[in-house]
Amino acid sequence: MLRSWCALFLLASLAAAQTNPAALAARQWRETHEREILTEFVDLLSIPNIARDTVNIRRNAAAISAMFAKRGAVTRLVEEPGANPVVVADLKTPGATRIITLYAHYDGQPLEASEWLTPPFTPTLRDKAIEKDGQVVPMASVKFPLDPEMRLYARSASDDKAPILAMATALDAMKAAGLRTKSNIRFVFEGEEEAGSANLGRILAAHKDLFTADVWLICDGPVAQTRDQLVAFGARGVTTINLTTYGPRRELHSGHYGNWAPNPAMMLARLLASMKDDSGRVLVPGYYDGITPLSATEKKAIADSPVPDQDLMKELWLGGTEGAPGRLLDLIQQPSLNIRGMASSRTGAGASNVIPSSATASIDMRLVKGMDRVRTVERVIEHIRKQGYFVTDQEPSATERMAHPKVASVILHEAGYNAVRTSMDLPISQEVIRAVESARGKVVKWPTMGGSVPLEKIENALGTKTITIPMANHDNSQHSFNENIRIRNLWDGIELMAALISM
Amino acid sequence: MLRSWCALFLLASLAAAQTNPAALAARQWRETHEREILTEFVDLLSIPNIARDTVNIRRNAAAISAMFAKRGAVTRLVEEPGANPVVVADLKTPGATRIITLYAHYDGQPLEASEWLTPPFTPTLRDKAIEKDGQVVPMASVKFPLDPEMRLYARSASDDKAPILAMATALDAMKAAGLRTKSNIRFVFEGEEEAGSANLGRILAAHKDLFTADVWLICDGPVAQTRDQLVAFGARGVTTINLTTYGPRRELHSGHYGNWAPNPAMMLARLLASMKDDSGRVLVPGYYDGITPLSATEKKAIADSPVPDQDLMKELWLGGTEGAPGRLLDLIQQPSLNIRGMASSRTGAGASNVIPSSATASIDMRLVKGMDRVRTVERVIEHIRKQGYFVTDQEPSATERMAHPKVASVILHEAGYNAVRTSMDLPISQEVIRAVESARGKVVKWPTMGGSVPLEKIENALGTKTITIPMANHDNSQHSFNENIRIRNLWDGIELMAALISM
Repeated sequence: MLRSWCALFLLASLAAAQTNPAALAARQWRETHEREILTEFVDLLSIPNIARDTVNIRRNAAAISAMFAKRGAVTRLVEEPGANPVVVADLKTPGATRIITLYAHYDGQPLEASEWLTPPFTPTLRDKAIEKDGQVVPMASVKFPLDPEMRLYARSASDDKAPILAMATALDAMKAAGLRTKSNIRFVFEGEEEAGSANLGRILAAHKDLFTADVWLICDGPVAQTRDQLVAFGARGVTTINLTTYGPRRELHSGHYGNWAPNPAMMLARLLASMKDDSGRVLVPGYYDGITPLSATEKKAIADSPVPDQDLMKELWLGGTEGAPGRLLDLIQQPSLNIRGMASSRTGAGASNVIPSSATASIDMRLVKGMDRVRTVERVIEHIRKQGYFVTDQEPSATERMAHPKVASVILHEAGYNAVRTSMDLPISQEVIRAVESARGKVVKWPTMGGSVPLEKIENALGTKTITIPMANHDNSQHSFNENIRIRNLWDGIELMAALISM
Repeated sequence: MLRSWCALFLLASLAAAQTNPAALAARQWRETHEREILTEFVDLLSIPNIARDTVNIRRNAAAISAMFAKRGAVTRLVEEPGANPVVVADLKTPGATRIITLYAHYDGQPLEASEWLTPPFTPTLRDKAIEKDGQVVPMASVKFPLDPEMRLYARSASDDKAPILAMATALDAMKAAGLRTKSNIRFVFEGEEEAGSANLGRILAAHKDLFTADVWLICDGPVAQTRDQLVAFGARGVTTINLTTYGPRRELHSGHYGNWAPNPAMMLARLLASMKDDSGRVLVPGYYDGITPLSATEKKAIADSPVPDQDLMKELWLGGTEGAPGRLLDLIQQPSLNIRGMASSRTGAGASNVIPSSATASIDMRLVKGMDRVRTVERVIEHIRKQGYFVTDQEPSATERMAHPKVASVILHEAGYNAVRTSMDLPISQEVIRAVESARGKVVKWPTMGGSVPLEKIENALGTKTITIPMANHDNSQHSFNENIRIRNLWDGIELMAALISM
């Protein structure tokens, strides 16, 4: 199935000669500088970038600042106490009256290094994807031009350092071709998006003059699963909680106490099962209240989008989907409640015959326009209380555990942010669609992307509209182990960024 | 509450002067040899003893064999291909016509060393239990006689090397006091009980002449929670499965696919929740079929047993129990279905916003007399199929995953064994009760212990009755991290073993 998509893609790219001058310059530059581009990317990906690793985060910020200073931008690190720096790089255009901001983030999702086939911060090329039995190609023996079906594996190879590299390369290409910017271009790179952007709103509000723009173009996320270029006019919001149930103070021998001591893993299973029905509908009362309906334009955009569901099911070895018969694109217009991780005692070789002492599920909730993240968490807590639980927002005390037959803690892991949706009918929306189409040919338009970006923080602090223009391949394992980018997407992304920078 | 038990215990031991001559000899010997006894125990506990670590298992077998050879027993390692050795030590008594076997096991439960406060194979004394804020007492500065409320922390400190040490020490004491055995005494030490005793039946059957006896006394498990000495006439059987549900082939971004890709953690939660009701009753059809009812004597023994439930709830910080209002002792006469561990993707610092690819629960089922372990697992599989699952006994293939909307694997982790119950009315049962009472005063009699020991394998291979006589404290964290033995229980156990050896 991938092969059929590739064939389609090759046909499409052969058919669509590059008509955008900046994107054409980007293509020509890239074709003659693949080695240099790859080297610069590998250097950037080699700097560990988990948000809580503040030492390395600063190394990233310094490296990215230097990348853009070298290309003639005025750069600065915007700092607030307790926050990772935001890198701002400004390219002034004489006579220009508007500012276009291109946003990306330089931090990556937390990880367990042992799960990766190759180390997450040792960028590694493979001749194709791991799922296709791709083999490592040692950097010393790489041949150029690269096969565009190769993959580069590293944390943030897709999410979200690829756009940063693509923007910097697009600037090189435009300079080499003597092309000038038409607007003032502002690059903004956040350093804690994968930690929930807890400080972004505060930073933007405290430095409005540095961040105000006519539009923010959010360069994050994957393109459509059909490999078509995507423009998304919104993103789901997100909020994350850790739900823990409690059993005996210490793990107990499951023989001597089984049937008598409450098993917190079973309690957790019952609680989780009470939250959704078998079709994936969330059963928490009020969960879907207040959702803003889609407009006619938005409904039409969804209807016009290709349907990747059948091909995706094969790619992912799925014999069914949760919201069947609903389609993926329709289902991500709805809020979700997802168990992102679950643990109790031990499994595998270290497992033993015990009644666990506690059980934890980490739950992310994706929100759509009209939902409030605080109220949503409250509704979940109310639902848990209705199942007979005493609920606390911290580790319960011995007294609390003894006073209640069922005890749970719900601890906000990442407060997150609400969903945002920009109208597709706005002049700037139409202008962005035209620019992207000029560089990338066929473009898929979605009212809302399934993933989350802190659009709300930007809109609330600055009053600025946001439009999301991703470049990564959908099959990039972002957020998981073995994250990667397909080289074709990296090359296309450079052309895409050139088109945006020259708007 | 512990304090009140201790007070009761002290009163009881002051009141009950030791009337059993061998047990009295054991007490006198121990009082003058605590340092030597502790040193020998520490040496034994320092040898790692996880069943699959066959190199260290052999070191244990050799050490135990040497311990008993030194005490005049004829020892041998009984070996079968693929099995850990069984250590047999025989003490012949001229003119004796019966053989009494004392059984213990020298392997310990699997563990995760990082969970332990001190390393599991570096035996560590504390002045009291960790839960009571017990502090480490360095071996170099230990004062004798030991405070009997001290604890010794190590894997198998209770389960089940304590009886081995106690038996060896009892032999020293009897020799020093010039006391002779009346029966032929056979010590049998198994090396893979915590791995399900998969080979015990085969070994016994292949070497009947080495193992035949008039009775097997099983020295394993904890005494009653009231700290009263326990004699148990049976034990629950056990069988363990790993249940895994499957979602997408690779972890997916929970934003881009949440609502569409099936979440295996939620599928697992729904499956587990379908297996028990809120009162702990197993909902798998037929689970309770065929159970042998308790006899009048057995019912009376339960009614006569002290009820530790309220004190235990406080000790374990429990505000409720699973089978309430059922009492612990009644509930362990029923079969259980226990989640001993559960995992999907990651929680804590390594968690990320994904839809997991699979989710696993490890489940142990405790069986009571009349249930068959094979049929029980079949019933669980039938139940899972009735929930719409395709169930396989191995990792499902891509084809299987694509052919079925719901896919689960049920893999037998430990085949285990069925429950066994010896009649309390038999002459040997009455004789054992009298011997234990003569050494330990008040004795609690249970028809069935909650935990499992491979009694069935012994009865099936040899046709020999089994009676279980434990010595460990109930609050020993056996099977979990920070396993320990209370010194008082170790000392009492030496007297108990002397009484059994002199039967």
